[in-house]
Amino acid sequence: MQSAEATGEPRRSQRWRARREAIIDTSAKVFARRGYHATGIIELCAANDLGKGAFYHYIGSKEELLAAIHDRVMDEVLAGADRVALAGGSPSHQLSMLGDELLDVIGRYPDHVWVFLHEFPALTDERAETFRERRREYEARVEGVLTAGVESGEFRDLDPRLTALAWLGMHNYTYLWLKPGGPLSAREVATRFSDIFIRGIASDQA
Amino acid sequence: MQSAEATGEPRRSQRWRARREAIIDTSAKVFARRGYHATGIIELCAANDLGKGAFYHYIGSKEELLAAIHDRVMDEVLAGADRVALAGGSPSHQLSMLGDELLDVIGRYPDHVWVFLHEFPALTDERAETFRERRREYEARVEGVLTAGVESGEFRDLDPRLTALAWLGMHNYTYLWLKPGGPLSAREVATRFSDIFIRGIASDQA
Repeated sequence: MQSAEATGEPRRSQRWRARREAIIDTSAKVFARRGYHATGIIELCAANDLGKGAFYHYIGSKEELLAAIHDRVMDEVLAGADRVALAGGSPSHQLSMLGDELLDVIGRYPDHVWVFLHEFPALTDERAETFRERRREYEARVEGVLTAGVESGEFRDLDPRLTALAWLGMHNYTYLWLKPGGPLSAREVATRFSDIFIRGIASDQA
Repeated sequence: MQSAEATGEPRRSQRWRARREAIIDTSAKVFARRGYHATGIIELCAANDLGKGAFYHYIGSKEELLAAIHDRVMDEVLAGADRVALAGGSPSHQLSMLGDELLDVIGRYPDHVWVFLHEFPALTDERAETFRERRREYEARVEGVLTAGVESGEFRDLDPRLTALAWLGMHNYTYLWLKPGGPLSAREVATRFSDIFIRGIASDQA
């Protein structure tokens, strides 16, 4: 989430922040069900049990809310990528850990991810730019692991960008069917996907 | 597309049908840009350069239009799957052909596919049911090829359902970046994706 400080707003209490987080989560559900453009402030106030004045005490605008939903997902996804980089290990192992982390976020934030993947074109100007940068940063992490694997000879000589897009598609698309309490946990799905993908890109020597 | 006959409407001229098809295509663009819920009939009439009365001469309702956009995609996707089944060959070859056919549709109908993947929850009752059935029918084709490959020993002993979801994710997700005139054609992307995926599921003997 973008902190209040980063937006140049006054320092806020812990309680204010917690309430704001709760509004973001509830609003993600509403956007996921109704669509961003079709949802008005009145509807968001009702879902959050807040008057219009109180709502604007926590959230500057509908688009700020959408950006906060994106940031919630991207914060988690990038924190996962940081953990993977810190853990180190072979490119295969890192790619497998990236898959675990990504499906963990998708499994925990189904509404946010739905909104994230469907409504990103509604972000404008600086918010759109920030979102693109953060998404590119994550994609660069995946591409970096693939490049390292190609360079070490662990992976075949594949185009890291196209291969990253294949990997991202396989994993991101689970938002349509990966549900908490489903037959397979996010971790189990990630393990099976890694098994397919890493064999698919492994060099013959590996 | 659902034919006029199937909806119990009177027989229509070739010209009526062509105009209806054009309205479906133009409206797919509008929905892709603005979202289904946020787009009103007045906006659709303007985009299609039609008065309200003329619009309803071609399309029964906004939801009928959404269903027709879905059908346009599903007709093409299922026709591709029929061609693959007719062509026969090894499961690997069939899976590779399914990928060619799917990315060909995604590359030719970016707006329709965007609407298809984002707005399907807006379909209700019988239309939602028809859509689910057709989607399941396509998924069953992919699963069938995977099952055949497992049974013949060409593929490893994988869960065909989960493996089909991995394959579908990798291919469907291209709707976000596969553009006509991009650096790689749909066919080239399909070839590289098949190369990764089929190696990933091939048995050690294969």
